[in-house]
Amino acid sequence: MEDCDFNINIAVVGVGLIGGSYAMALRDLKPKCIIGIDKDKSALKSALDSGIIDRAYEKGGDFLKEIDMVIIALYPKDTIKFVKDNLKYFKKGTLITDTSGIKENIVDTINLFLPEYLEFVPGHPMAGREAGGIKWASKDIFKGANYIITPSEKNTSWGLKKIDKMARSMGCSNVTYVSPEEHDRIVTFTSHLPHVIAVSIMNSHEENYKDNIELFTGGSFKDATRVAQINSKLWTELFIMNSDKLVDEIENFQRSMDVLKKAIMCKDINTIEYIFENGMSKRKELVKG
Amino acid sequence: MEDCDFNINIAVVGVGLIGGSYAMALRDLKPKCIIGIDKDKSALKSALDSGIIDRAYEKGGDFLKEIDMVIIALYPKDTIKFVKDNLKYFKKGTLITDTSGIKENIVDTINLFLPEYLEFVPGHPMAGREAGGIKWASKDIFKGANYIITPSEKNTSWGLKKIDKMARSMGCSNVTYVSPEEHDRIVTFTSHLPHVIAVSIMNSHEENYKDNIELFTGGSFKDATRVAQINSKLWTELFIMNSDKLVDEIENFQRSMDVLKKAIMCKDINTIEYIFENGMSKRKELVKG
Repeated sequence: MEDCDFNINIAVVGVGLIGGSYAMALRDLKPKCIIGIDKDKSALKSALDSGIIDRAYEKGGDFLKEIDMVIIALYPKDTIKFVKDNLKYFKKGTLITDTSGIKENIVDTINLFLPEYLEFVPGHPMAGREAGGIKWASKDIFKGANYIITPSEKNTSWGLKKIDKMARSMGCSNVTYVSPEEHDRIVTFTSHLPHVIAVSIMNSHEENYKDNIELFTGGSFKDATRVAQINSKLWTELFIMNSDKLVDEIENFQRSMDVLKKAIMCKDINTIEYIFENGMSKRKELVKG
Repeated sequence: MEDCDFNINIAVVGVGLIGGSYAMALRDLKPKCIIGIDKDKSALKSALDSGIIDRAYEKGGDFLKEIDMVIIALYPKDTIKFVKDNLKYFKKGTLITDTSGIKENIVDTINLFLPEYLEFVPGHPMAGREAGGIKWASKDIFKGANYIITPSEKNTSWGLKKIDKMARSMGCSNVTYVSPEEHDRIVTFTSHLPHVIAVSIMNSHEENYKDNIELFTGGSFKDATRVAQINSKLWTELFIMNSDKLVDEIENFQRSMDVLKKAIMCKDINTIEYIFENGMSKRKELVKG
């Protein structure tokens, strides 16, 4: 397999929203063949019928010997399991990447059993939709998106370059390299915490269930709770695998909120204004636009 | 002044983002004259130069005798003060409305001293922008927006109808009537709480100030922290006037978050999934789209 050349056989494992979107975006790179693997027959049929994939399998097998690049779009535990269960099929030099929202656990575990003749490049496309499933797949989810690669000492520059090239060719704007540990720490703050908050806001609304909240919002409520529309099985797995870091981040947030709550309780104008100014200048620094 | 007729003299008090936007939207209703009142001379000049207002004053005075409708777009305390300080100028039948994000305190206070020959209709346009000032004013902020009216027993159906008609003519989609107390209770949840959260997220980010967070977000962080861009003086006043209700709502949220935190800490899959499902079904019920 040459650098920057996608005239190869690709397998996409998990033909849902993310895997389906990869297959659609990868088609533009003119691969020899895109194979879909999914235990859900109807997802495979739908992907075959619409030409998103060329061949379909319900699980790994001998056919993997022909595959040059494997993209795993499964939940974290299933990602590890797929690699482990199919080690006997992968040919020498096969490049394996994943799409999981948490990296340290996956990288450490896969590196424990991955033979030297295979390469695993951990990837995290920061793209998605509130709804899941192949019918929502679209190559547009990658347009302008962030793509994170979390190399370990086992990666080669060839493998990293290949996935980098793939992400950019699919339309991603930024490809960023950080360690798996650093990835998980930052994403806990930028993604897991906002999800915990969105769900907690909705669940704090007990008594006044019948309020027609939509008539009383100017956008802030909708924005703050959008990601309460969650894939509960996936996020439960992510939260549990990331439990320690996430609890730390929740507690940082709780301390920060307690400071503001106390200032509001005491009607302490100066402290509230200081907290606002501080939050505002941090956001300006950290988030553009 | 006839029902549904805006061929009248209107005063807009506070010619900033909100007041300026009112003046621009009201122009389409063909008023006789729009007068702007603001202590900021440069705001007045800018509004005059661009034809948003026809005449400008730095404070109330004798000219208010000609005014049929007064729209006060000031901070809550200044709203009360403007009405009180100018009682001697308003003519019989003048309709006064406000735009403040908190209602109970304002309605109760103004009703204490408002003479019978004037009518105050409390209004809350749920429209705005992150940036303030006349240069950001636009009549488009009202398009499709929610407008809340919080009547008291002192209001007449004529006065309510007039403000209702005004809001709809300016482009607002929904005009909703609730008591001032109910308004404050709901808005505490739908607006004040998301602002407290956005600010608290930003302020919880102490140690890792240099992270390029933008490369690690897929939207949820940006959404959850958007309203950390806050008018700190205005929101400090709103939070302090609404202190009791807001602290209650923060504590409801904190209890809800603690339940989820404990489940994550204990890696309690069933409870986390239950919390997610519950949050998701509430959001589906409460927020459309």
